[in-house]
Amino acid sequence: MALPSPLSGVVPPLCTPLTPSGDIDTRSLAALVEHVLTAGATAVFALGSSGETAYLSDAQRRTALRATVDTVAGRVPVLAGVIDMTTARVLDQARAAAALGADALVATVPFYSHPHPTEAATHFRRVRDGVDLPLLAYDIPSAVHTKLAAATVLALAEDGTLAGLKDSSGDGGALRRLLVALRGRGLADTFSVLTGSELTVDAALLAGAHGVVPGLGNVDPAAYVRLYGHARAGRWTEAAAEQDRLAALFALTETGDPAAMGGSSSALGGFKAALHLLGVIDCPATAAPQTPLPDSAVRSVRRYLEEGGLL
Amino acid sequence: MALPSPLSGVVPPLCTPLTPSGDIDTRSLAALVEHVLTAGATAVFALGSSGETAYLSDAQRRTALRATVDTVAGRVPVLAGVIDMTTARVLDQARAAAALGADALVATVPFYSHPHPTEAATHFRRVRDGVDLPLLAYDIPSAVHTKLAAATVLALAEDGTLAGLKDSSGDGGALRRLLVALRGRGLADTFSVLTGSELTVDAALLAGAHGVVPGLGNVDPAAYVRLYGHARAGRWTEAAAEQDRLAALFALTETGDPAAMGGSSSALGGFKAALHLLGVIDCPATAAPQTPLPDSAVRSVRRYLEEGGLL
Amino acid sequence: MALPSPLSGVVPPLCTPLTPSGDIDTRSLAALVEHVLTAGATAVFALGSSGETAYLSDAQRRTALRATVDTVAGRVPVLAGVIDMTTARVLDQARAAAALGADALVATVPFYSHPHPTEAATHFRRVRDGVDLPLLAYDIPSAVHTKLAAATVLALAEDGTLAGLKDSSGDGGALRRLLVALRGRGLADTFSVLTGSELTVDAALLAGAHGVVPGLGNVDPAAYVRLYGHARAGRWTEAAAEQDRLAALFALTETGDPAAMGGSSSALGGFKAALHLLGVIDCPATAAPQTPLPDSAVRSVRRYLEEGGLL
Amino acid sequence: MALPSPLSGVVPPLCTPLTPSGDIDTRSLAALVEHVLTAGATAVFALGSSGETAYLSDAQRRTALRATVDTVAGRVPVLAGVIDMTTARVLDQARAAAALGADALVATVPFYSHPHPTEAATHFRRVRDGVDLPLLAYDIPSAVHTKLAAATVLALAEDGTLAGLKDSSGDGGALRRLLVALRGRGLADTFSVLTGSELTVDAALLAGAHGVVPGLGNVDPAAYVRLYGHARAGRWTEAAAEQDRLAALFALTETGDPAAMGGSSSALGGFKAALHLLGVIDCPATAAPQTPLPDSAVRSVRRYLEEGGLL
Repeated sequence: MALPSPLSGVVPPLCTPLTPSGDIDTRSLAALVEHVLTAGATAVFALGSSGETAYLSDAQRRTALRATVDTVAGRVPVLAGVIDMTTARVLDQARAAAALGADALVATVPFYSHPHPTEAATHFRRVRDGVDLPLLAYDIPSAVHTKLAAATVLALAEDGTLAGLKDSSGDGGALRRLLVALRGRGLADTFSVLTGSELTVDAALLAGAHGVVPGLGNVDPAAYVRLYGHARAGRWTEAAAEQDRLAALFALTETGDPAAMGGSSSALGGFKAALHLLGVIDCPATAAPQTPLPDSAVRSVRRYLEEGGLL
Repeated sequence: MALPSPLSGVVPPLCTPLTPSGDIDTRSLAALVEHVLTAGATAVFALGSSGETAYLSDAQRRTALRATVDTVAGRVPVLAGVIDMTTARVLDQARAAAALGADALVATVPFYSHPHPTEAATHFRRVRDGVDLPLLAYDIPSAVHTKLAAATVLALAEDGTLAGLKDSSGDGGALRRLLVALRGRGLADTFSVLTGSELTVDAALLAGAHGVVPGLGNVDPAAYVRLYGHARAGRWTEAAAEQDRLAALFALTETGDPAAMGGSSSALGGFKAALHLLGVIDCPATAAPQTPLPDSAVRSVRRYLEEGGLL
Repeated sequence: MALPSPLSGVVPPLCTPLTPSGDIDTRSLAALVEHVLTAGATAVFALGSSGETAYLSDAQRRTALRATVDTVAGRVPVLAGVIDMTTARVLDQARAAAALGADALVATVPFYSHPHPTEAATHFRRVRDGVDLPLLAYDIPSAVHTKLAAATVLALAEDGTLAGLKDSSGDGGALRRLLVALRGRGLADTFSVLTGSELTVDAALLAGAHGVVPGLGNVDPAAYVRLYGHARAGRWTEAAAEQDRLAALFALTETGDPAAMGGSSSALGGFKAALHLLGVIDCPATAAPQTPLPDSAVRSVRRYLEEGGLL
Repeated sequence: MALPSPLSGVVPPLCTPLTPSGDIDTRSLAALVEHVLTAGATAVFALGSSGETAYLSDAQRRTALRATVDTVAGRVPVLAGVIDMTTARVLDQARAAAALGADALVATVPFYSHPHPTEAATHFRRVRDGVDLPLLAYDIPSAVHTKLAAATVLALAEDGTLAGLKDSSGDGGALRRLLVALRGRGLADTFSVLTGSELTVDAALLAGAHGVVPGLGNVDPAAYVRLYGHARAGRWTEAAAEQDRLAALFALTETGDPAAMGGSSSALGGFKAALHLLGVIDCPATAAPQTPLPDSAVRSVRRYLEEGGLL
């Protein structure tokens, strides 16, 4: 299906449920899709960072995307992450995603190597030229160690290479300046700006962002939909209160102690433990080589869910 | 004078005007103080990063602080930056600032060395114990290369070591979580949280911050006062519009091309060029070893002021 | 063929020649293999960073590795880089490399996500368990943003998971301490330590490293073989003189101006321009999205080759 | 006294002994000076990073430097660190050091702010113009977060601004290229290059460095003098063996567990605990806000000294 222009609303970056033996649990994935669609998600983002995409083999990526597309069944657009080290590999991922029915692609700049802004622009242009699907840039310097320059985004927005941006840079000031610049170029109504900063969604929407891709939206998509609704209606105080509640709930990402077990094991383990406790997925396992959450951490996740009114 | 609890509103981090020969220009500094007080500043912050404090000798710091205190003359509180490498030196700066009549102190964690959170806490406790003035922590990892941990801030807020925080970390998510945690501990009404992120002030106020310390507020303090007023009155759309205008004006910090001359030379040079063009200060010189803005950059600053309706 | 224990000598990380249209140029790759074997390389390392592995599709990786194995034809061991984001993907790369006849594997820690040391150890253990080939860890924090901890290397050396280390961390002090620790555990004669720091090879050999994996060794493998020979014979002054000559030659990696075009485009472009000027490969093209070296830079490469006595 | 051109040999960066109440212990400092001079130090470096300079007040710096100059009494040159945030402050430190009888100055680039190379060059030129003493640049990016560019060092060496470089960057490849470039410009015999990387001194000397400024040289200066002597005599294997022994001894910097108490507390605490156990200084206290070494760590320091044959 065609991607709305701009895409707006709540677009959960789906977790990828696994079986105890580490295979993709397509039944649980389907349940997770229903969980977020029922809550009011306007699209889903498969194979993002929250989906442990970095940890999945190509075959697992395909299985997960196919299951997502099948379950969504055209109700909303499916964005597919095509996260890989550089252009040729992203193109391969993009072709696979297109063949499986993705409605749009989300790509980072190259990583491992460190791209110059000129190389970053060439990268996105080649990906867009190679696969005929709307392309969003995924700005996530915490993972790829390059901040996408505003000038690059603006040039690629103006020439139609990019349909939008998923901004997980955490740099609210840069996002503000980009939104102002897009407006100055008449692009604000068509170029989708989605924030991946799940703790400042009210701020991003106030600044003019169109939507949000919240990892925590796997656990409580309804809250993000309420937040978004308040913001769109101009009920900023209510939006902020909902955001505050979600900021408290976010503590479930740190129950494993990031210093002791790694940030990804703790955060993604927290999301999956919560989804398991909520009965959405069958098994809370994360992909190797992540360390499983200890029982004490799972008990803390339960407590945060209870305090958040979800259990 | 006593620091309000919490301190709120617009607290400009004053630039430090220099003469062409590099001395403190106390006449221009006094004019700058009047410029921001007339606009409605609720306090002033002398000797912060925007004040080129890192570039000033101890004697220059004293001259600048004395002139500030004299000009303010008790109309609003004067916060004094006591920025130095570590505890013993910050204590010396703090004693000097107290002797000159500062109403509160603002200190970073130690830099050059890299403090452990335990060392950071010891640092603030020793500074607070050594000089009897309210103490605010200045979280500015771009300069000091350590992010102040939320747990440290909370512990020092609870035991009364810190009266507040100036958050220039740019990490809106962490700020949100801190504000929620302060509220949970009943500290939100007394512990001052001021954002130094001048491009996301509406967001910080929506999240519960009490005020803002905007470098750009040297140039256009009235706009920040309007922004603050809109926010306090719940006029969030108007607050955002004012913030957008300021985000456009912020381009005056980059006219010198940060890559070609250094970020500080370009940004502080831009502030001072603007103040000079506005007739507030007599000379736009920045302290050595910064590189002066080229004429072409000054013309760009003029254009941004004109586009912003300030000239 | 079995990997020597320890592997020592000069192990060039082969560039991957491309045709003008971007395909693997297997004829030129074979010529490059002969170029380094004739010079006295003791093994070759296919699909490393110098091989633009990050830029190649899976199919291109397979083509390049197959051509390397075929050309080498058992004369020396072929090490294969299995560089990918995380365990499952590295396992897929490792199985492919094993099927193509690689004699040993070289893997980094996971990247994109940031592994905890425990996760890094789990990663290498799973890769070693999954494919029955000697495994070397590739410590390259400039690309993967994690420094492999000495304790992790030592544990994995002791339990036999790792057969060796390719150290491209540039941290000579850490390398020294590791070598001393390996000796203390009786592992120095079997665990291969190869430095990837091509400008301090004499130092690494003096400290006890067994060999070197020099990117610049594509261009001048004979010089590295001479350097190695001097070092093994205790002719340290001669070794240093050869290293100095290579340090001067290394300027060919910066002719493109890393700030203007990106470090990878400049460095890998420099290697390939040199190989083209030397008549080893047919086309100096680098993989997309890298920017081609401008003609002026190629002229500088020529000059450095002439000054180095290679042209 | 005049600084040798080039300065060579072993130049310990003196620890600054404190009394239990935190004052400068001039008696212990004098004993430490004798400890290193007896061992054969060719100069001493007061107020460096190992001297906890970042932690000392201006008054304490003066006390320590005065005591050092008095004790040395002209037997060797005294280099004085003038570590401060930027030009004006470094000039104040430099004037104070000159007045107290320092023979040469050692300055970093500005920190807190991030200098552009042009600003860094201006900085050193102003410091050199302001105080008539030989000036060495101190390249220590781990503390000041800027790597001194080779082009800047070369320009300042050629125009006589700098008399030398203390390289604590840990970047052996960059050091190698700098040494080769200095030789190409005919500067290698007059411009002093001293490495601060105490674990790779043999390598630096083999590459052409003139001397070493080893923090660990406070504890075992005689070993560094032996290492230096072996290197100068071309006994590289013996030099490497001595370096290996020192690399093992270096473990005394980590007994406090850097992750648990901070790297500086552990390393500087380790040096001082060792000097205390060796009977050189009266009290192992480090400056606030550092955390004291726990007793268990002190026992480990004792063990390393015993294993190293020093106790």
